[in-house]
Amino acid sequence: MLTDTDRRFLRIAYDEAREGFEEGGCPIGSVLARGETLVSRGRNQRVQGGDPIAHGEMDALRKAGRQKTYRDTTLYTSLSPCMMCAGTIVQFGIPRVVVGENATFGGNEDFLRARGVEVIVADDPDCIALMTRFITEKPELWAEDIAED
Amino acid sequence: MLTDTDRRFLRIAYDEAREGFEEGGCPIGSVLARGETLVSRGRNQRVQGGDPIAHGEMDALRKAGRQKTYRDTTLYTSLSPCMMCAGTIVQFGIPRVVVGENATFGGNEDFLRARGVEVIVADDPDCIALMTRFITEKPELWAEDIAED
Repeated sequence: MLTDTDRRFLRIAYDEAREGFEEGGCPIGSVLARGETLVSRGRNQRVQGGDPIAHGEMDALRKAGRQKTYRDTTLYTSLSPCMMCAGTIVQFGIPRVVVGENATFGGNEDFLRARGVEVIVADDPDCIALMTRFITEKPELWAEDIAED
Repeated sequence: MLTDTDRRFLRIAYDEAREGFEEGGCPIGSVLARGETLVSRGRNQRVQGGDPIAHGEMDALRKAGRQKTYRDTTLYTSLSPCMMCAGTIVQFGIPRVVVGENATFGGNEDFLRARGVEVIVADDPDCIALMTRFITEKPELWAEDIAED
C-alpha cells in the first residue's frame, strides 16, 4: 500500500527524472529512504556523466555511499527497474521497492517478488507522461540505455 | 573453452584485483574486451571510492563508457559475479563471461546460463588464493561488499 511518505519520496524521484530530462538525459529518478528519512537521491547519468551503469536507482545507491545494511530501506524509482537494477536490489537486500510506473517499461516485478521483495507500482500519470515523451522524442537514446540493439 | 586471449585478459583482471588488495580494498578485478582488444579494466571501488555499486565488473563497465552494443564483447572477472553484476550482464546483453574462480563465492552461473550467457570458470589458483586471503583477513569488509548482515 502506498503511504503518504511513499508519495512524498516518489515525487522526489519524479523531480529527479524531470531534471534529467531537462539536462537532455534519460528521465529516470530514484530515492533511497530509511523510513521517513531520505538517504540519497539520484538520476540516470548516461548522458550527463557518460556512465552506462548509472541508471537512476544505481545513482541513488552510489550517492548513499557505504551502508551497514539496506534491510530497513525502501527504494523509490520513477520507472520499473531493469535487470541490472533488479539484480542490485536483490544483492543489496533491499526489501521494498516503490515503482512510479511500469506501463512504458518493466517486467522484473516477478523476479523481485520471487526473491521476497515487496514491489508496489503506483501507476503515476506524471511518470508515465514523462517517459512516454522521452521514448517518443529520443528512441535511440532510450534503446541505448536498455541495451536494445 | 579458455583461449590464450582469455588467459591474457583474465590475468589483467587478476592484476586489477591484486592492486585493489594492495590499496586495502576488495580484491576483485575485471576486464571488458572486444575480441583481442581490451575495452576497459577496473576493480572494486567500495573502499577506494566509497562506492558500493562499483564491484569490479561494474567499474570496468563504467570505465568503458557508452557502447553502441555489447553483443561482441567478453567480460572477464576474477570472481564469480554477484546478483547485481549478473543482472547487469543480462541487461547489457553481454554474451560471454570468463570467471577466474567460483570456489570462494558464486551461485549465479545458472541464472546467467539460463539467459543464454556463456560462462567459463577458469578455476584459477591465484584468484582463489587472493580471495581466500582477503576473506580470512577482512571478513567484515567482505560481508559488507556482498551485503551479508
